[in-house]
Amino acid sequence: MNKEKSLSNFASRMFINLLGIPAIILLARAGGLPYTVFFGLVAVLGQIEFYNLIKQKGFQPWINVGVISGIVWILIAYLSQGLLCPLLLLFLLGFLLIVLFHPVTNAIVNVAVTFLGFLYLPFLISILIILREMPKRYDGNYLDGYFLVVLVFSSIWICDALAYVFGKWLGKRHKIAPKISPGKSWAGCIAGLCGALLTIILFYYLDWKPENLGLRDLLIIGLITGIIGQAGDFVESAFKRDVGVKDSSSLLLGHGGILDRFDSFLIAPGFVYLYLLIIL
Amino acid sequence: MNKEKSLSNFASRMFINLLGIPAIILLARAGGLPYTVFFGLVAVLGQIEFYNLIKQKGFQPWINVGVISGIVWILIAYLSQGLLCPLLLLFLLGFLLIVLFHPVTNAIVNVAVTFLGFLYLPFLISILIILREMPKRYDGNYLDGYFLVVLVFSSIWICDALAYVFGKWLGKRHKIAPKISPGKSWAGCIAGLCGALLTIILFYYLDWKPENLGLRDLLIIGLITGIIGQAGDFVESAFKRDVGVKDSSSLLLGHGGILDRFDSFLIAPGFVYLYLLIIL
Repeated sequence: MNKEKSLSNFASRMFINLLGIPAIILLARAGGLPYTVFFGLVAVLGQIEFYNLIKQKGFQPWINVGVISGIVWILIAYLSQGLLCPLLLLFLLGFLLIVLFHPVTNAIVNVAVTFLGFLYLPFLISILIILREMPKRYDGNYLDGYFLVVLVFSSIWICDALAYVFGKWLGKRHKIAPKISPGKSWAGCIAGLCGALLTIILFYYLDWKPENLGLRDLLIIGLITGIIGQAGDFVESAFKRDVGVKDSSSLLLGHGGILDRFDSFLIAPGFVYLYLLIIL
Repeated sequence: MNKEKSLSNFASRMFINLLGIPAIILLARAGGLPYTVFFGLVAVLGQIEFYNLIKQKGFQPWINVGVISGIVWILIAYLSQGLLCPLLLLFLLGFLLIVLFHPVTNAIVNVAVTFLGFLYLPFLISILIILREMPKRYDGNYLDGYFLVVLVFSSIWICDALAYVFGKWLGKRHKIAPKISPGKSWAGCIAGLCGALLTIILFYYLDWKPENLGLRDLLIIGLITGIIGQAGDFVESAFKRDVGVKDSSSLLLGHGGILDRFDSFLIAPGFVYLYLLIIL
């Protein structure tokens, strides 16, 4: 990547963050449908981007089936306020049966990538909605869901920002996995983890946190966002590298690379949800 | 397929049925670990067959990761006596992260087909174990699980047998989907459905049934096994046709085509389980 492109990428990143971060915080505060619709859009646009990545490889994901299932799943997650396993089974059975209405060529791979696109985007994004709506389930204070998701988002954002800045500054050597993501260095990664943990500690002392979570719980959440969040970036980098594109946004010009912007939001919140299920 | 091969296929089918059907009924009667271990083996051998199918297409499913996950999932299903959605989320997150320890080439497709193999075999087969163990969950009579799975298996077997015999006899014309499965005719399909329903009615009058299921419930189960069971055969045919093999057993000589023998057991029981969740 040349310097100019790197700068314009950084500028677009800053611009999106400047508008996007306050917007997401406001949406998280509101919760309910506005928040669900926003992340539903993220899920569906990300899913289309993902399917376009796969098309570059010469496969034919069933975009319509995947996207309609994605929208239905997001609504189910919102309405049920929890992961419904029997419904996930129904989706899997449905995807398998829909094989019969598609050409046999590449049947296995096409059903596999279509279903993976559904799981990677709408299914994992639905966790963000479930986390926000969780207090409803336990008759808790509805704002606790707000504190929870903002805590998760903020630690991911600060982690990303510090990883970026420290990576530029100190990360000339000691790359983590240059074949997957040439830019990422251990220096940036450790700075990112520290950023995630410092965010958590700050939020704890400001008491911007769900009532029933203590410092230990919050630190575990910080470790998850700081470590798994960055690992999630690598997963998406591996997917892009597989296809041979640098930037998922280059596939869908105009809306700016949903996968690139939200890659840390896909895997880490799933682990946060699992941790909360254990302790709650 | 030439006549000789068709005959030897029929003979091997008869032989396996003659030994296999009473064995499976005895295992279902015993329940518990023997039944779980048997279907665990079916799941894992079927999964390996499925991965070998995919390898024919030039992809590299992570066989070890898939199979170990499959074994763990089967044990979890047995111990928990229900589908655990948070654990399925954990498996998905794990599969995504394991991308990072594999070559980037074909990363998306390899994770997609590995996960599909896990879902199609161990995950769906685990439903058979959950159905058998269900009464434990509801403090019911443990033999009700036996009656339930034998009812499902028998209606699938009779359906398959009648579809085969009537298909040979009357099914020269009116093929359903010759591109996917050249042998299957509407005559065979309708005979199969009638066979499934007649089995159900027979079991009802012999009172070989779970205590809390009435005739209507049983007939719905018969419709599921008679219709969806046959659709499940088509799904597997589409997968084999995609790869260009006639018989999944030809890939793993010796243990005789698990996917071919159990293809009707994969999708229909999932719908039976969903129906029971609705009515129970």
